[in-house]
Order: sequence, then C-alpha cells, then structure tokens
Amino acid sequence: MPTSPATLRADLAAEEAAQPNLGALLRHVHRDGPLSRAALAERMNLNRSTIMGLTTKLGAAGLVHERRPAGEGRSGRPSLVVTPAAQQVYVLAFDVAVDRLVAARVALGGTIQERRVAPRSRSGPDLDAVVGVLAGFGRELHRTAPPGAACVGVGASYCGMIRPGDGMVRYGPHLGWVDQAFGTELGEQLGLGLPVAVGNEAHLGALAEHERGAGVGVQNLVYLHGDVGVGGGIIVGGEVLDGESGYGCEVGHMLVNPHDGRPCSCGARGCLEAEVGERALLDEAGRPAELIGRDAVRAVVADAERGDPAARAAVRHVGDWLGIGVANLINLFNPGVVVFGGIMGDVYPGAEPQIRSRIERNVLPVSRERVRLATAALGDDTTLLGAAELAFAELLANPLAVMAQAGR
Amino acid sequence: MPTSPATLRADLAAEEAAQPNLGALLRHVHRDGPLSRAALAERMNLNRSTIMGLTTKLGAAGLVHERRPAGEGRSGRPSLVVTPAAQQVYVLAFDVAVDRLVAARVALGGTIQERRVAPRSRSGPDLDAVVGVLAGFGRELHRTAPPGAACVGVGASYCGMIRPGDGMVRYGPHLGWVDQAFGTELGEQLGLGLPVAVGNEAHLGALAEHERGAGVGVQNLVYLHGDVGVGGGIIVGGEVLDGESGYGCEVGHMLVNPHDGRPCSCGARGCLEAEVGERALLDEAGRPAELIGRDAVRAVVADAERGDPAARAAVRHVGDWLGIGVANLINLFNPGVVVFGGIMGDVYPGAEPQIRSRIERNVLPVSRERVRLATAALGDDTTLLGAAELAFAELLANPLAVMAQAGR
Repeated sequence: MPTSPATLRADLAAEEAAQPNLGALLRHVHRDGPLSRAALAERMNLNRSTIMGLTTKLGAAGLVHERRPAGEGRSGRPSLVVTPAAQQVYVLAFDVAVDRLVAARVALGGTIQERRVAPRSRSGPDLDAVVGVLAGFGRELHRTAPPGAACVGVGASYCGMIRPGDGMVRYGPHLGWVDQAFGTELGEQLGLGLPVAVGNEAHLGALAEHERGAGVGVQNLVYLHGDVGVGGGIIVGGEVLDGESGYGCEVGHMLVNPHDGRPCSCGARGCLEAEVGERALLDEAGRPAELIGRDAVRAVVADAERGDPAARAAVRHVGDWLGIGVANLINLFNPGVVVFGGIMGDVYPGAEPQIRSRIERNVLPVSRERVRLATAALGDDTTLLGAAELAFAELLANPLAVMAQAGR
Repeated sequence: MPTSPATLRADLAAEEAAQPNLGALLRHVHRDGPLSRAALAERMNLNRSTIMGLTTKLGAAGLVHERRPAGEGRSGRPSLVVTPAAQQVYVLAFDVAVDRLVAARVALGGTIQERRVAPRSRSGPDLDAVVGVLAGFGRELHRTAPPGAACVGVGASYCGMIRPGDGMVRYGPHLGWVDQAFGTELGEQLGLGLPVAVGNEAHLGALAEHERGAGVGVQNLVYLHGDVGVGGGIIVGGEVLDGESGYGCEVGHMLVNPHDGRPCSCGARGCLEAEVGERALLDEAGRPAELIGRDAVRAVVADAERGDPAARAAVRHVGDWLGIGVANLINLFNPGVVVFGGIMGDVYPGAEPQIRSRIERNVLPVSRERVRLATAALGDDTTLLGAAELAFAELLANPLAVMAQAGR
C-alpha cells in the first residue's frame, strides 16, 4: 500500500485528466463484457498501439485481464481479448424498496456475485432499522468478497426524492421519510471509509435499463417504476434528467384526473400514481383494504389472465389511466422506448391494449413513429443494478486514482 | 477571395477542431456584448496571452474589434475591450407564425438591424406564398446590408413540428402543412448558397430566452408559446430537449381534461392547447366564432383587467387549466424558470393566481422550491431571435471556417 494515498491519488487524477480514454475503455468492457483490442480500437477510433498502452495501464492497476481468444487455428496474430477483472473489483449496492431491503456485491462487469434480502414492514419512519440491516449486510458482503478484491464504491437506491451530493432523502411519503440523512448514516455504519452515492429508485432504474437493459442503444428513454407509488426516471440525450435541483422526473404526480381523482399520498387528487398505483388496482379489483403489497398486485394480474371479470376490469381501468400518462410522456420526450418496471412491469402485459389505444389517440403521429414499449429487461434487479452503476461511476471516471485510493 | 474556399475551409475546420476556444470566446461576446480581455481570461480560465492569441485570430477574420476602454485616467495598462463586429457579420432570420411572417437581418451580438413584416392569412396550405414573401424579404435585407458585411447563416422558426437536418415541416396542423419541404424551398429561392436551418418556434423561443432572455443562468427551463395552439420548448441541462427524432416538447397535446375536454386540432379531446389556446379563451369569454387572432385575445385580457365579468372568468378558467399543465411540467422537469410567450405571455398576468394555486396544490414541495414564473423577456421577438441563434450556431462552432466560406 502506498505511504500517502491522498498524494498519489491527486497525482494520478491529474495524469488521468489528460487520459480520458482510460475510463472510456474500462466503460466499454464493464458494460459490454470481453472485447478484443481490435474491437476496442474500432469502437474508440484509436489505433492499436494506443489501445495497448491503455490496457497495459488498466491491467497493471488490476482492472482488466488480457487473454488470447478461445478460437484456434486462426491465421495471423490474434487480437488479445480484454476482460474486466470481475473477481478483483466490486461495489456494494443497496436497494431500499417500500417492502424489501436488498444488498449485493456487484462485480466490475455488472454481475451480481452475492446478495442479501430482508423484508421491510410498512410501519412508518424506520431510518435506524433500515440503516442497521443494510450496514450489517454490507459488512458481511465485504467480508465474503474474494481475497484481495477491492471495494471501489457504494451505491444505494431509495424510493423517494434524493438531494444530490449527500444522499439526503428529502421526501419519501409512503413511509414518512422527510429530510432523513440516509446516505451519511449508511456510510458511517458501514465503516469502509467510502461515501455512499444515493439515487432515486426510478432514476437508477432508468440508468440501468439504458446501460444494460431494454434501452441499450437509445438516447431518450422513459422508465416507469411502480411500487406503492409510481416513480419515473427519464433519460434525455443519454443523461438522466435531474432538473435544477435533482428532483425531476416526478411522473407519479402528473395530474391526469382533475375531475374526480383518487386521493394521492402527496395530498392532491388525481395524480397518475393515485390512479394507477397499487391501491388503485386493488380497490378496482374489489380487494379488501388490508391487502397490500406486490404479491396482492400479482394475484390481481394472474386472476385477470385467468379471465376473472373484476380483475380484468381493474387491469383495464388502470391501463387506461396509465395510457394517458404514457401518451403525455411520449409527446413530451419523444423517447425511443418506454420501460415498465416494478409493479408497472407486472401490470403492463394485461394493460397493453389500453395503453396502445391511448397512444394511438393522444400521441402525435410523428412522435409515435419510433417508440417501443417494453418491460424492464433487468426485472426486479433494475434498481439494484442502477445503484451499482452509481457506485461504479467514480471508478469509470478516474480508474487509476480510485484503485490507488482502494490501496491497489 | 481564396481560390478554393472548400479546401481552405477544410483546413481551417481541422485547425479549429484543435482550438475550441475560438468559438467559445466568440460566443461570450456574441451573447454578452463587449468584454475586456481580462474578463474573458477569467471567464474562460485561460491566461491573457492565450486570450490575445484568440482575439487576434478572430479580429483578422473580421469577427471582433479590440479597443481601449472608454474610461480615462486609470492606473496601469488597461485591458483591451473585445467587441463583436456587428456591422460586418450578420444572419438572416425568419419567423413564420400563424398570423404573420417576419424577416430580419440580425447582427453578430444579437441585435436586430432591420426587419420586414407581412400578415399571413389563415387560409390553408400556403407554402409557395410563404416562401415567396420570405425569400423576397431576405434578398432585400441582404442587399441593404452594410457594404462588405458577410451573411454567415440563415435560420427560420416555424409553428409546427420540424424534421432535424432538412427543415421539413412534418406537422403543422393549423394551416394544414404536412410534410412540406420548407427549409429546402426557402434556401433555393433565397439563392445565397446557404442552407436554411429550421426549428420549431417554441424550441427556438426556449433557446432565445435561455441565451439572452428570462432564462439566462438557468440550466433547466420550460418555455410555453401560445398562438392558435400551444407549443413548448424545454431546456434540459442547458440543451433543447429534442428526443429521439427531434419531436419532443409537445406540451400542447398533453391530455389534461380526459372527461369532457374540448376538441383539439390533433383530433383528440382535452389537450392542453384545446383548453388554454386562443379559441378556448375566446369561447369562454363569449366572443363570436369568427373573431380570431392575437388582437382578439388581447381584447379579452384588457377587458378582464377592466373588470368585465365574462372576460375575467375566461382568463381564470384558462388559467386553471394552464396551471395544471405548468404544475405537471414542473414535476417532470424541476426547472429554474417557466417562461410564458406569445399569447401565453398576454394571458399570464391575469391567470397568474390560478397558475400559482395549481402549483401550490399539485407540485411536490421540493420541486417548487426554486422555480420562477416569467413572461418572455424578448417579447414578440423571442422566436425570431431563436431563429437567429440557430443561424449563428455554425459560426460559433467554427468561426474561421465559416468566415472563409463567406469569402472573408
């Protein structure tokens, strides 16, 4: 370990500022897996000797391996294949959903190596309990990492509005979190000496689906995430829409039903999440008020598939309101894809006809020419993997400096 | 004039790719007016000798002048003031609104030097007539330019959806323009050998207000433009939101009234523009159906100010629906400012209480913490000046190459 990591890190950061290609190359193999030097040279529009210089530095820092390709009997000298060092470099990723807590060790390259899950009760403000469980999981996952592996970042997804910078939960109505210092608390209790980057779950879902899910190759994406409420994450020109203070993308509080809207957790009526969220679906299907949660939603969806009239009507009803929200978002964002995640992903298949009908009726023809609709390709791991991407961001910006900081 | 402008231009473009600061410096004085070398050095974080090198090159190309500052008796050597060469460099800007055609010669620095205006009747498809009038105006403005001045670009604003690249009007419902080759036609008839960059009027209004109007210093801005319909231009992270094919920001067709909405030009019902556009206001105020246009709208607004009950009720009614649209946009974009232009700017002062009440009710507290509401600071010239900025874009990206192309 270097004697003064801070000094070394500053030197390396300065060196890297002049070499943005180091991070760019690492990003290619992190996102897309093993790639030959020749493929990297073509993608990055650099010559092979420059690529070799970059992979040598990244290899020395323990971030990539280079191997001969598996195929035999090729003519000429084969181009070495560059692979992310998945066994040596990882992040800790946390997902605080309304009804569960998830922690995972995620390797460079984006694979979940190991995870821990605990239920979360909907019993009101629970910062200490949540941080306690997650910090315990995190320390465990750190201990069970492969010997010599480096933890290069910590990321967390939270189902509320997050202040950029310090991970303060500004507003999480469903469990009464207002101005809770989640990121700071979790960082302290983990005790790894690493800050915790916190993001809103739907923003992170959008990021993950854009990087390695249903939105790969698209520069404009709308992601809708349903749990108790409905959150949105929107990618504009390749970047998550944050707005002036980081609170953009609040699709759940788009007013869609101004006449006789259902009451919403925010205090208003007729918001999208009031009309299409968990409670709306369960009420429309005639389920008792004490029935809550994702399993209850999935039961309605399953009953609708089997032909139960009340369940079918409920899914259609929700689908029509959801269609209004989706149509409005397509008119505004002209996205390449709209992705449905969380319970929106469960509801989507049954609600698709209503959604498409609304798009047909309310979206201008030129804006619907190219839009696809899809469920989250990363399934229930979308938000967790988004948190992992948030945790990897610093490494991908300054690979050598972050590895030095991690003692490599 | 150089013997081979194309070759020279290619050489200069290559030279400039290595010197992005040339365009950056020119952009500072174009947008903010005369600035001392010292102020430029501080803004651009460059040393004074680098600034001198840049201003010398820009001066030789005829783009800036340098003068001693006006104040006398200062100690030490004064820092020269760099001024855009407004008399030597200009663009032609065109604005095709629903009811008028405007052409202007706009100087480097953004000042309108001379303009021509003609009425436009609402009598249906009129591509040839519009192009004929504008091309005539354009040639005139070109002829009356100061001797030796260079025309460096042509930009046009159109009240419809524009295909990026070739200025094709894909959809302009109010006068029946669908797939009309406006940009190409105007370029040919102008005969200046310059392509015409065409943009949607509200997108360009957003650009102009962001560059030199109510949104200076803000990175996220929503601009609402009213004429017959309601258009939107949205700046996200400093850039106009285009979406996947250039058709984003269609706020006018956000469905706000799904129950008993008014019919909209797009074929749907209850769109924002159907509820708050010109016709909605005039109908609510009890004006006869044959009364149309901006003067009729302004008459309702004036009557409302004088206390006429029907006019006041009409402005309030439109204000409430407009407030729903604005609240939804603030939740989605977390903007620093919402700007009202065109007839939305006329209606805004009377409708402000309703709009603010909706924001209070429907926008999440953290998202409304920092948002301002404002009318367009550039008034009726907003869209025209946006077209001028579009025309200047190429010069600001490659100043020397564009000046060489212009024969300088």
